[in-house]
Amino acid sequence: MNVAVIAYRAGRLTVLDQTRLPGASVAVELDGLEAVEVAIRTLQVRGAPLIGITAAYGVCVALREAGKPPAAPVALRICREAIKRLAGTRPTAVNLFWALERMTRVVERHGVGTPGGTPDGRPGLLPALEAEAAAIHEETRVQDAAMAVHGSALIPAGAKVITHCNTGPLATGCGGTALGVLIAAHRKHGNDGGIHVLVDETRPRWQGAHLTTWELKTLGVPHTLICDNAAAMMMRLETIHSVWVGADRIAANGDTANKIGTYSLAVNARHHGVSFYVTAPSSTVDLTLADGAGIPIEHRDPAEVSAPGGRAIAPPGTPASNPAFDVTPAELITAIVTERGVHRGPVYDLRRDLG
Amino acid sequence: MNVAVIAYRAGRLTVLDQTRLPGASVAVELDGLEAVEVAIRTLQVRGAPLIGITAAYGVCVALREAGKPPAAPVALRICREAIKRLAGTRPTAVNLFWALERMTRVVERHGVGTPGGTPDGRPGLLPALEAEAAAIHEETRVQDAAMAVHGSALIPAGAKVITHCNTGPLATGCGGTALGVLIAAHRKHGNDGGIHVLVDETRPRWQGAHLTTWELKTLGVPHTLICDNAAAMMMRLETIHSVWVGADRIAANGDTANKIGTYSLAVNARHHGVSFYVTAPSSTVDLTLADGAGIPIEHRDPAEVSAPGGRAIAPPGTPASNPAFDVTPAELITAIVTERGVHRGPVYDLRRDLG
Repeated sequence: MNVAVIAYRAGRLTVLDQTRLPGASVAVELDGLEAVEVAIRTLQVRGAPLIGITAAYGVCVALREAGKPPAAPVALRICREAIKRLAGTRPTAVNLFWALERMTRVVERHGVGTPGGTPDGRPGLLPALEAEAAAIHEETRVQDAAMAVHGSALIPAGAKVITHCNTGPLATGCGGTALGVLIAAHRKHGNDGGIHVLVDETRPRWQGAHLTTWELKTLGVPHTLICDNAAAMMMRLETIHSVWVGADRIAANGDTANKIGTYSLAVNARHHGVSFYVTAPSSTVDLTLADGAGIPIEHRDPAEVSAPGGRAIAPPGTPASNPAFDVTPAELITAIVTERGVHRGPVYDLRRDLG
Repeated sequence: MNVAVIAYRAGRLTVLDQTRLPGASVAVELDGLEAVEVAIRTLQVRGAPLIGITAAYGVCVALREAGKPPAAPVALRICREAIKRLAGTRPTAVNLFWALERMTRVVERHGVGTPGGTPDGRPGLLPALEAEAAAIHEETRVQDAAMAVHGSALIPAGAKVITHCNTGPLATGCGGTALGVLIAAHRKHGNDGGIHVLVDETRPRWQGAHLTTWELKTLGVPHTLICDNAAAMMMRLETIHSVWVGADRIAANGDTANKIGTYSLAVNARHHGVSFYVTAPSSTVDLTLADGAGIPIEHRDPAEVSAPGGRAIAPPGTPASNPAFDVTPAELITAIVTERGVHRGPVYDLRRDLG
């Protein structure tokens, strides 16, 4: 890709505006806290890991927005306020809260010495925040690579697989989660049959059609776009090796919140004896939640359903419901792939494995 | 509705152009065989029963198109050619072939006396064809009413139900099949809790969003539009009484071809213990087919998937697959409602029940 998914250089945060894809690759600078909030809310940046990275950089942007290093109490207030506002942008993906928690720890640790460095010589708050955000970004890169290795080992040459939503580089700013696995499998098997990816369009926001096909085309991975409605028939009539999805939040027992439609795919995979894999970094696992019942589900604007792309498909005033995520119970998940390895179901104890 | 779904008066066939709904209610006259073919192919008229009625009238239109009553051999040739061409418009809905078979019998029976009446005083070919088409239309009206009675008896007051695609008056030119049942249930229970219909949007052509919501709004039936992707979550989190769908072709063992996405709904209904009902007139049952494996599945233009409404959602050249129907195996169907009554599964012998 010619435009970086996310970049923070010389104190400036730039992201690829994903709402413009696949028609245009447009980089936008998020030059203040409000721009960062809007970018997350309106899905200019999306994908659980990328939301986390963006929010981390967003705290840095907020502090820089204040101009020349403010006095310590002011800097603290700015950061705490920024973290609070960023935490309110989207409710389901836990990576957002996980990244902001890491930024909070930096803020509180450096509070006494802000902004010019602590009396004992530790660096100032802004450099420390920038280092932490960069570390989160870099860890994502390493984790994505590890997931790709673990996951691609599960996919034989010639496999036909189904994926939902977008879980590639656009979703993490690095190699991707589930789609990163499929890209790695393609590279591994390229010379002996490769793989073929059936891409769910992923209504209502069409991340599969808009983003996943764009990534697979760019990378040369054979693929076919299908309506979400067609996945079950494909499992019945074709030899589907496995289904690969990402996650927005995984509870300690393996219950997984992911893009709406994931649960239907999982039920169908079970019915057809097709393996169902979730791929996500351990930062997506929320060990504070025993099971999926506690995961808050974002309900987005009903117009995403009734007027996709701004064009009405139903009569004016038609009531619509738009849950953006659903929860797939752990027992339907064959395995969860994290950077630590392959955690096999149907019973998971992620507190033991990842705690 | 202010515009009739289909009307044949004084030799002129007029249909409501369903591709313009819900934005505009536009009646178009199908003034020749080609216009009838185009109307069926492009879904200006759709819905298995309505396709059958339209094709029947289409034979009359073709004969009238020839001008003043042609000589018998010419009239015969025109009718046979029209029937052949109409049979080529869409492959899955069996009502089309069933209606054309009835028209064929009229043509062949009257062949000797065309066009001015037989030597023994039987009416001419054109009046006979027009009478047969009107009979098919009128039988549909009676059958729809019977299905509404049988089906609505299965729905208690306060039930929340899910439906897919459009199976109302727009699909039959009369009262509707599955949606006719739901409309009847609404009228029956209006004073003690009514019913609530969750309407699947029904990608790729959005018949649920375009047509079903429009009908339910017009008739005052409470409803909510959802993405097809959300139906499974609704079955898990809400108390869904039942799922109601129509059919394009039902094999003798009950296997049912219907709009793509039906099968996924059926698998999910089974998983959640939700009843799954198919409603269709006996003319939708193809007793020549032992099971669903023999039902031809129409694959439509991939652009319906990759560029809904003419607007691309994927990069140029993205390969897409667009099966318009899927087959739900009989064992997932709780019951099939026809005008003859409620045929309960999971094992069906429709040759015995309807043959």
